[in-house]
Amino acid sequence: MPTVSVSLAANPYEIVIESGIFPRFGEFFRKWAPSAKQAVIITDTNVEPLYGLKIAEILADAGISNDICVVEAGEESKCVEIAQLLWERLIECGVDRKTVVVAVGGGVVGDLAGFVAATLNRGLPFIQVPTTLLAQVDSSVGGKTGINIPQGKNLVGAFWQPKGVLMDMESLRTLDERQYRAGLAEVVKYGIILDADFFTFLEENVSAILARDETVLARIIARSCELKAQIVLEDERETSGRRAILNYGHTFGHVVEKLCGYGTYLHGEAVGIGMVFAAALARKLDPENPTFMELEMRQNALLTALGIPTQAPEFTRDEIIQTMLHDKKTENGVIHFVLPNRLGECVMKTISGVEQYI
Amino acid sequence: MPTVSVSLAANPYEIVIESGIFPRFGEFFRKWAPSAKQAVIITDTNVEPLYGLKIAEILADAGISNDICVVEAGEESKCVEIAQLLWERLIECGVDRKTVVVAVGGGVVGDLAGFVAATLNRGLPFIQVPTTLLAQVDSSVGGKTGINIPQGKNLVGAFWQPKGVLMDMESLRTLDERQYRAGLAEVVKYGIILDADFFTFLEENVSAILARDETVLARIIARSCELKAQIVLEDERETSGRRAILNYGHTFGHVVEKLCGYGTYLHGEAVGIGMVFAAALARKLDPENPTFMELEMRQNALLTALGIPTQAPEFTRDEIIQTMLHDKKTENGVIHFVLPNRLGECVMKTISGVEQYI
Repeated sequence: MPTVSVSLAANPYEIVIESGIFPRFGEFFRKWAPSAKQAVIITDTNVEPLYGLKIAEILADAGISNDICVVEAGEESKCVEIAQLLWERLIECGVDRKTVVVAVGGGVVGDLAGFVAATLNRGLPFIQVPTTLLAQVDSSVGGKTGINIPQGKNLVGAFWQPKGVLMDMESLRTLDERQYRAGLAEVVKYGIILDADFFTFLEENVSAILARDETVLARIIARSCELKAQIVLEDERETSGRRAILNYGHTFGHVVEKLCGYGTYLHGEAVGIGMVFAAALARKLDPENPTFMELEMRQNALLTALGIPTQAPEFTRDEIIQTMLHDKKTENGVIHFVLPNRLGECVMKTISGVEQYI
Repeated sequence: MPTVSVSLAANPYEIVIESGIFPRFGEFFRKWAPSAKQAVIITDTNVEPLYGLKIAEILADAGISNDICVVEAGEESKCVEIAQLLWERLIECGVDRKTVVVAVGGGVVGDLAGFVAATLNRGLPFIQVPTTLLAQVDSSVGGKTGINIPQGKNLVGAFWQPKGVLMDMESLRTLDERQYRAGLAEVVKYGIILDADFFTFLEENVSAILARDETVLARIIARSCELKAQIVLEDERETSGRRAILNYGHTFGHVVEKLCGYGTYLHGEAVGIGMVFAAALARKLDPENPTFMELEMRQNALLTALGIPTQAPEFTRDEIIQTMLHDKKTENGVIHFVLPNRLGECVMKTISGVEQYI
């Protein structure tokens, strides 16, 4: 069974990736939280009928008493008010320090449930059951949890590692096509920044990927998690700068999300557009170098083949710069870009006079 | 200069304890947060005019640009709504990941500011300047931060260690007598649970303590911090049970706070009453043993000499048991008591049929 180990010294955990694995969730729950007798499942209105109730039943069959909290599907639920409702609801469910919070859903549910788990009673054990491709390859590794405030996305949160992550490829069968393709943008990202062979594997398997072939998907998800886990192990709390390379495509991606209004583009779509921007920026900085030209071409061709939008909306240069300056990752007014060095390798750069390249 | 080192592997920090040290805060700030150029001070309406503005001025003189956020004095400010206002206010102040949150005040300010620091941008550096005795000997060591929700106190929070703690004994001169004595209850607690010699020192210095003699106070505060730091090092996140001994007096103390309504008794006063309850419980469990009788007598005599209330209000047995069962520290319906073994040593106990001793 494909398993990725995330060997964080203080919180090692495993990610199990397998088609049709949900019925065995009780077994993994007992392994990952041996002293727990109670769980609270947090899910959303879309996922509850598909997998939330099923997970609740599987846990009950395994002798784990559980309650289920359902939030409205969508980014709007990732807010203080809903976090507060969940804190209160969990207390009413009689949670104690051993009660496990189980997130069943996509990135919004994972981030929100993780934040609630991180903060209630100063930290409850947490298990993730991500059911979207984006959540499986991105938010389930790394321990970032959070909510949005009016001033921006994910501005409030905590690093909180799960006790374990269970992914069932079957849950991707029900995923809406647009959501699925948006998730693939982050997969392509891992190839560009960390693994040229993986990028080539993606190029060679476009049809299988689009057909959601479960063997290919298992490999893609496992490799994405492995690559992300490597980086997280080197820099768990984003202090050394190493982890920041995972933000490839995100500097401009955040501009797209913010200027178009959150929700116009899915996060993965915005990242795809941001990757197009970043590869072009790398090429413009060294226009004679064929490496960057080739990289940009291959990246954009793969994104296009996978049905990921690559065309940025029209923004003014000033809008772009101002939005970047207000990004959470900007420090002391300096914008950092993650740019490819060559396929499978990238670096953090600050660019003086970046305006001229936009 | 009395300095206590809290040698947590991931977050070592020092506590500096000295009379008249505030004017040197800029120097410590630079030492503890060498890459910071900006600070946000969080304080309350009582402390702002006394020390908040002074700390702001000292930082500005040291070249650290800063803003000051003032919350209403009192426990009511330790809530989600105020945390949210602070998150938003800090973003408006233009904080980035290196901006330091400086808490200037008592336990409420420290817990609230610490929680905001722990969660904004998934964690900002944090410096504590505790200005009450209780905050100096208790909440400034150990990294517990948090807010209250309607269901209970400190139910939402995070472990978040400061980069450094600066205490100026001069700030105790302005402390209200009742607040001061309540702080002493936690000091007596350290003697009972961990250090018989320290307990004797307190017995021998009652008048100097009540006169707020700064030499005696420096010694008492430093020893209290040292003792707490030892325990926190053994069990930072309260997982092994070791840290739980710090809750001596708290099981019944929480009952007093909750049943009388929060604010009727100060936290330190409730802990004092809880210690009287715990010592009596230890004696009742082994009524022939002179150790427990003597310990109870000495403890209660010292509390009384220091002007700390020792008389519990009238509660029914059922009210007491029910409230204890709903305590955050109760797991799977089992109430844990911290009871003295002998002076300077204590253990965690579960007591079957505890009702008969109440």
